[in-house]
Amino acid sequence: MRLINTALLFLLLILSCKALGLKPQLLGRHTAQTNSQHTSVSYKTFYFDQQIDHFGFLENGTFKQRYLLNDQHWHKEGGPILFYTGNEGDITWFCNNTGFMWDVAEDLGALLVFAEHRYYGESMPFGEESYSNAKYLNYLTSEQALADFAVLIKALKKTLPGAQKSSVIAIGGSYGGMLAAWLRMKYPSAVRMLFCVSSYGFSWTHLISFSFIGEGLQWLSQEFGLCNPLKTPDEVYGFKAWLQETWVNLAMVDYPYEANFLQPLPAWPVKVVCKNLHFNTGVSDKQLLNGISQAVRVYYNYTGDAVCLNTSQTATGNLGFLGWFYQSCTEMVMPICTDGVADMFEPQPWNFQAFSDECYNQFRVRPREDWAEIVYGGRNISAHSNIIFSNGNLDPWMSGGVTRSLSESLVAIMIDGGAHHLDLRYNSEFDPESVIKTRALEVRYFKQWIKQAATTQ
Amino acid sequence: MRLINTALLFLLLILSCKALGLKPQLLGRHTAQTNSQHTSVSYKTFYFDQQIDHFGFLENGTFKQRYLLNDQHWHKEGGPILFYTGNEGDITWFCNNTGFMWDVAEDLGALLVFAEHRYYGESMPFGEESYSNAKYLNYLTSEQALADFAVLIKALKKTLPGAQKSSVIAIGGSYGGMLAAWLRMKYPSAVRMLFCVSSYGFSWTHLISFSFIGEGLQWLSQEFGLCNPLKTPDEVYGFKAWLQETWVNLAMVDYPYEANFLQPLPAWPVKVVCKNLHFNTGVSDKQLLNGISQAVRVYYNYTGDAVCLNTSQTATGNLGFLGWFYQSCTEMVMPICTDGVADMFEPQPWNFQAFSDECYNQFRVRPREDWAEIVYGGRNISAHSNIIFSNGNLDPWMSGGVTRSLSESLVAIMIDGGAHHLDLRYNSEFDPESVIKTRALEVRYFKQWIKQAATTQ
Repeated sequence: MRLINTALLFLLLILSCKALGLKPQLLGRHTAQTNSQHTSVSYKTFYFDQQIDHFGFLENGTFKQRYLLNDQHWHKEGGPILFYTGNEGDITWFCNNTGFMWDVAEDLGALLVFAEHRYYGESMPFGEESYSNAKYLNYLTSEQALADFAVLIKALKKTLPGAQKSSVIAIGGSYGGMLAAWLRMKYPSAVRMLFCVSSYGFSWTHLISFSFIGEGLQWLSQEFGLCNPLKTPDEVYGFKAWLQETWVNLAMVDYPYEANFLQPLPAWPVKVVCKNLHFNTGVSDKQLLNGISQAVRVYYNYTGDAVCLNTSQTATGNLGFLGWFYQSCTEMVMPICTDGVADMFEPQPWNFQAFSDECYNQFRVRPREDWAEIVYGGRNISAHSNIIFSNGNLDPWMSGGVTRSLSESLVAIMIDGGAHHLDLRYNSEFDPESVIKTRALEVRYFKQWIKQAATTQ
Repeated sequence: MRLINTALLFLLLILSCKALGLKPQLLGRHTAQTNSQHTSVSYKTFYFDQQIDHFGFLENGTFKQRYLLNDQHWHKEGGPILFYTGNEGDITWFCNNTGFMWDVAEDLGALLVFAEHRYYGESMPFGEESYSNAKYLNYLTSEQALADFAVLIKALKKTLPGAQKSSVIAIGGSYGGMLAAWLRMKYPSAVRMLFCVSSYGFSWTHLISFSFIGEGLQWLSQEFGLCNPLKTPDEVYGFKAWLQETWVNLAMVDYPYEANFLQPLPAWPVKVVCKNLHFNTGVSDKQLLNGISQAVRVYYNYTGDAVCLNTSQTATGNLGFLGWFYQSCTEMVMPICTDGVADMFEPQPWNFQAFSDECYNQFRVRPREDWAEIVYGGRNISAHSNIIFSNGNLDPWMSGGVTRSLSESLVAIMIDGGAHHLDLRYNSEFDPESVIKTRALEVRYFKQWIKQAATTQ
């Protein structure tokens, strides 16, 4: 059947480039990697009482923010605190997947802290009601999260014996990287320096067109082995959005070894996926779609354990889908679009009004598209200091990142052959030299800035 | 009669060092100064639509923020914008009293903007209801005010033809000076540099003791010519608080020429006041109190027009008493105390719990004493840049200010013989050399940083 080009559901604009997670994935069963042994992860879990509203006094309630702590290698009286600024998901998952911090802890004599972002994981300001309405969701903003981190840091420095003189290095990947950068910018007295990785970049590398007619829906459902067969033409929008997000996620996790971050995947999964997408001219639609379904199965069913493919999710359930949807509908407006010329997708211009209406329908709030640039400075960040911006040139989010150094202490690093925050992962015998050098450079900056901080104290 | 030492009402802690204004003073009738002619003040008034809540999306209403603009000397395509970050009062009053900006506008080719602080003057988020309850007052915070300024600056730079390349210099005195500093720290992309004057300093120079017995109340009321005679011993607390605040205000406005900022006053008013306070040993209580009442009349009735003295106010009605009370009851906690040893007042230790209870009684909110230090960095501000902190050594608020330079571009200036933000006032033939040199130095820094900004754009 011939596939008809149809516009992608604007929902794609919200969901793409951020993994969806509605059901737990196979994470627990596939944590083994073909890496050589890496530093084991062990931590204590704590809960810190935070104001629900740091910026208003009417709501004077508190909630418990979860944080994880490891002091195994910490040199009290001088050793730094590496503080992971949690992103949109369960903090234990970020903790387990940020091997870099575990790898460098001993060399730096560092205390490791992983702080959960409010409204994700266990850190719920209103318990189970936190997402139930706009009133309770109102305190889910990056500014509130940054204030949580600043308050927690101050409390730790005050109460942990030996921490008073410790420099704090904020670290984060993806949205967490954005938060780490902003924490340094907004609360430099709390954070001496930071390292932020793969913060918001976006590029497309393939071009595919789809169209649907009639009983093709049944054929497609069977071909792709969908858990929930497509029944109406309207459902195709969601199907295409799911496919588009799949490619983006795939590019994000194109790691040089077998890994399980968003999904369990082989080494260099893009190459493996693309083996199914080599076509000669004159190939039929069904052959084309068959290739795509095989490709998609590499992403969703590498283990062979999935009995069907679930189009309502694209990644691990550890990510907070609904929370990030709300955040993108308020502050974190991402004006993403496709044009079918520079990318492999169908043209979908950015339609702010439609996006705003969908946000209002969903949450009863409207996005403020100018605010993030005003509050965080946009491109004009040269007044800040002691920030490493690291990106990988395989990462779709790279194009929204800071990829050019702005000063001696606003340092941009581009990792050749790196996907989404590769350098935050554990060292691996399969690492390309680029990321090995990058990590070494990052640690050199840490040590340099820690030393500077000690001399100016 | 013998005066008995009694504790000062803790309310003093809230009210002292900030002028009270409940009724309009004689401001309009006494704007003439014995200065030589100064630059005339003329401006256009505008209103800008601001979000009521910059940090939450549930409250999506807007309000009109007033701002004043003068472009008489502005060199478009390069001339800077001098942006006064309005404090706790009517912006026209600050505009009229910040002669420095008018004096330097031509030399710098500057656009002048005076932006009113929300909840003061005409900039009321909920109109007449703005102060009616905690729900409406909830958006009166420094963070919201800073966000107003940042959004307004961005809008001006975007819409005023020629403004796109203008550097922005934030300027402010007292709480306005704090805001200007924080605006540079929190929104450096909006503000290239700033100049903040006399931000929160406190010292005492005299020692007086009071006590009251019985019909002494009537005698006191007559002696001081009070509009509302003291009727009960309890009212003495308020009377003493009024006196204490009077001395503090007096010190604040100890200017070298006749002026009318908080009250119409002679040149070097502290000297004039103190002429009434030279006593020999063995002077009677009544003689002592007579001297004090004469001294107080210098402050409240220099013009001779006042028929009685009003103990419910200490300064111009242009200041927003209730708003500042709320702000000090939430974020701007000022842990002020007296010990009767290093100061001339009765001992009054800082009692946070009592203060918190009073705030709750008044506004149904409780102060968060740690927050301001966390959000603005306290003493740890060395990561910032391009800020001039100017103080005067006659100003009680000086001791809470930044009085030591922290870097090449975090510059502290101490004006010998300067009271509260003397350098923000118009040039005067009576200016001591210290303030003349100070202003010249400030303008030199402005020009240097404007030039740097232009080369890095």
